[in-house]
Amino acid sequence: MRFSFEPALRRFREAGCAVDGDLVRFDRGFVAERLAEAPGSFTLHARNPERHVVVGGEHLALAPTGGCPFVLDPERGKRPPTAEDHATFVRFTHAVPLFDLNESGIVEPADLPVESRHLDMDLDVLRWSDKPYFAVGATYEGSRDSVDLAAIVFGGRDAIAERPVMLGIVNPISPLFYDDRMAGSLVAYAEGGHAVVLMPFTFAGGTAPLSLAGSLAQIVAEVLAGVCLVQLVRPGCPVVMGGAVSELDLHGGEPRYATAFHGLAMLAAGQLARRLGLPFRGGGGFTGSPVPDVRAMRESLMALWPALLSGAHVILHAAGWIEGSLAASIEKMAEDVAALEVFHDLLAAEIPVDEEALALDAFREVGPGGTFLGAAHTLRHFRERVAAGPREPLDWRAWLERYEDPGMDPAVEEELRAFVARRKRELERG
Amino acid sequence: MRFSFEPALRRFREAGCAVDGDLVRFDRGFVAERLAEAPGSFTLHARNPERHVVVGGEHLALAPTGGCPFVLDPERGKRPPTAEDHATFVRFTHAVPLFDLNESGIVEPADLPVESRHLDMDLDVLRWSDKPYFAVGATYEGSRDSVDLAAIVFGGRDAIAERPVMLGIVNPISPLFYDDRMAGSLVAYAEGGHAVVLMPFTFAGGTAPLSLAGSLAQIVAEVLAGVCLVQLVRPGCPVVMGGAVSELDLHGGEPRYATAFHGLAMLAAGQLARRLGLPFRGGGGFTGSPVPDVRAMRESLMALWPALLSGAHVILHAAGWIEGSLAASIEKMAEDVAALEVFHDLLAAEIPVDEEALALDAFREVGPGGTFLGAAHTLRHFRERVAAGPREPLDWRAWLERYEDPGMDPAVEEELRAFVARRKRELERG
Repeated sequence: MRFSFEPALRRFREAGCAVDGDLVRFDRGFVAERLAEAPGSFTLHARNPERHVVVGGEHLALAPTGGCPFVLDPERGKRPPTAEDHATFVRFTHAVPLFDLNESGIVEPADLPVESRHLDMDLDVLRWSDKPYFAVGATYEGSRDSVDLAAIVFGGRDAIAERPVMLGIVNPISPLFYDDRMAGSLVAYAEGGHAVVLMPFTFAGGTAPLSLAGSLAQIVAEVLAGVCLVQLVRPGCPVVMGGAVSELDLHGGEPRYATAFHGLAMLAAGQLARRLGLPFRGGGGFTGSPVPDVRAMRESLMALWPALLSGAHVILHAAGWIEGSLAASIEKMAEDVAALEVFHDLLAAEIPVDEEALALDAFREVGPGGTFLGAAHTLRHFRERVAAGPREPLDWRAWLERYEDPGMDPAVEEELRAFVARRKRELERG
Repeated sequence: MRFSFEPALRRFREAGCAVDGDLVRFDRGFVAERLAEAPGSFTLHARNPERHVVVGGEHLALAPTGGCPFVLDPERGKRPPTAEDHATFVRFTHAVPLFDLNESGIVEPADLPVESRHLDMDLDVLRWSDKPYFAVGATYEGSRDSVDLAAIVFGGRDAIAERPVMLGIVNPISPLFYDDRMAGSLVAYAEGGHAVVLMPFTFAGGTAPLSLAGSLAQIVAEVLAGVCLVQLVRPGCPVVMGGAVSELDLHGGEPRYATAFHGLAMLAAGQLARRLGLPFRGGGGFTGSPVPDVRAMRESLMALWPALLSGAHVILHAAGWIEGSLAASIEKMAEDVAALEVFHDLLAAEIPVDEEALALDAFREVGPGGTFLGAAHTLRHFRERVAAGPREPLDWRAWLERYEDPGMDPAVEEELRAFVARRKRELERG
């Protein structure tokens, strides 16, 4: 594995790894020891204790798409996102109970300076939502800012180091390379004690070999190298394994979504994560369609089901992805939520089997050829089925109307805003 | 169970069952003996031997929607179907390799007399396709006609009794009732030695109790009663268990599709079929949407995936269903085929793991930070991946252009048409 971030190379050298220039060679025993330090599951702490999220075990946490350079405005079409769009997506994500996790950076506000917008985006999530979240930092300094901002809200860096409140995404540069930004971000999250999601996103035949086994082997290598660095920074720090293998259209070169190859890779990556004892991040509802049309729904559900079946503990990009992640669509997000609600209910459902559930009295009352519409058993269970039954899907406007500000202690908010203002001045000075 | 069809009651009486008027009470041991006679899997024989279909085991056979009183014309909207529409759907189903089974009666041609149109529809399937198929007969006489028509093509009634060529659908009238038409159809198919698909289609709180366990118990009772009758007519005759539990909107009374309740019932019914040792028919891509829009695709895929995961051996209504089966949409059918192709490829896919698949030489050649685009390994596997890679989905017009007439021996065709003409005259005379 190559690492260009000198503090990472230093840690590997100090740990006795074979480091040759920027190339690190990993010893099998060393990797196994570091892997054993990573927890199999952990709890993400929310501002609202009712929204704590367990990552691992039998739990599945969902989050919308993120990192989109455009927004697909339902009225004006595709355009650069604004700070207001970002806040809207954060509120939308807060309003939808299906989303366990909020997310900083769903869209990249083009009206905010690139060097400091991570502060505004994390502030949005901390202020307008009380769910655990994905932070947006993607450099050492940016991710350190993410941790510092959270520390203000959650009682200081020491407190949150023991009680992680955020997930940080780290994408290795496939194949087998962590650059300054990604390794730096990893180190900053690990220093803060927060969960690092190691997410290789590969294209077979481009950034990975043109074979499933080879691509999966590469993903595992990239994840394990990241696990080692995280554990060297802070033993026991939570790590989540991700891994997607997509296909390039071998004629035109553009990526293809929702293929069997992608689905199979997702299922296999989930198995590998279980083998390694790491929580797994799968996902999501990928499509190449530039609008939330029938094709978009078909592709995203054919991509999403394998992720849902992979045993994933966290699914990012579960909703609202459009045009190969180029844009976030709030309209599509609401449609995807309607589909995910069915899956959520399916996971939560049970089949009680007892005399009442078997409706023995109803069969006696109704008999062959009759109707259960007015049967005593039906009337007895009518209310509970209405309550448990399918919901009418809400559109995006209805979801936004449901948003309720979780509020924030004014002193904390003031401190947050002061931190953001100070860091912005520092960053503007360079 | 109630049966209004006297020949069915007679068979139950002769077998020693307790028959009280039209009510048949089944002894546990008697049912177990009949169930043991039904095969766990069987082969459906096609005109083209390459298209034989195994029903059971690890096999999944797909068929489009059927029985629709309307067609959703892509240009003219919803309208009564014609004989030409029926032939078009048969050709479409023949042209799509994904469909293992063709189907008589995808739409009900309103321009053909109701008492004889089953002859025209079965003739379409026999003439324009060489796949095994669902026959359309739904009375004793109609299903006997289906068998007689097939006998002309496949070498006589005795030959096809040993080598079934068709599936006949029999829907009990839930709860717990087989009327003259359905029991008659069952008897005619079983007399001919053809596979009977017993398909209770229930609505919880209407035609079944308002509970999953009660609805599932009812389905099992209805299927087992049908199994007993089939085996009394012809021991060893193949039977397929179906079973769907849908929800009614308890406010408005209309059916709801793609709900968690429906999905869970599908998974449970599949388990029950395995427990009983019967092949299972699941499905399908249900939606209440009257047009092939985003909602239709969302609902149909959220209904279809549980069916695909239920261990179903046959899925009817896998494609083209619209508006609660009121209409068949060829446009939606092509969209559904595109989704099912991904699932088909996923089922068929393997992950070879050897030195070549692990791409060890490619990792040596490319190294960390490089690209696999021009690597020797990529070039070596380029062709096979292009061949195995995702297909560009075809729209319905492109599928119809791919249709190739399988042809038919003119003497056989003449005999078929003569039979149809003679039976039509008989039926018109009443």
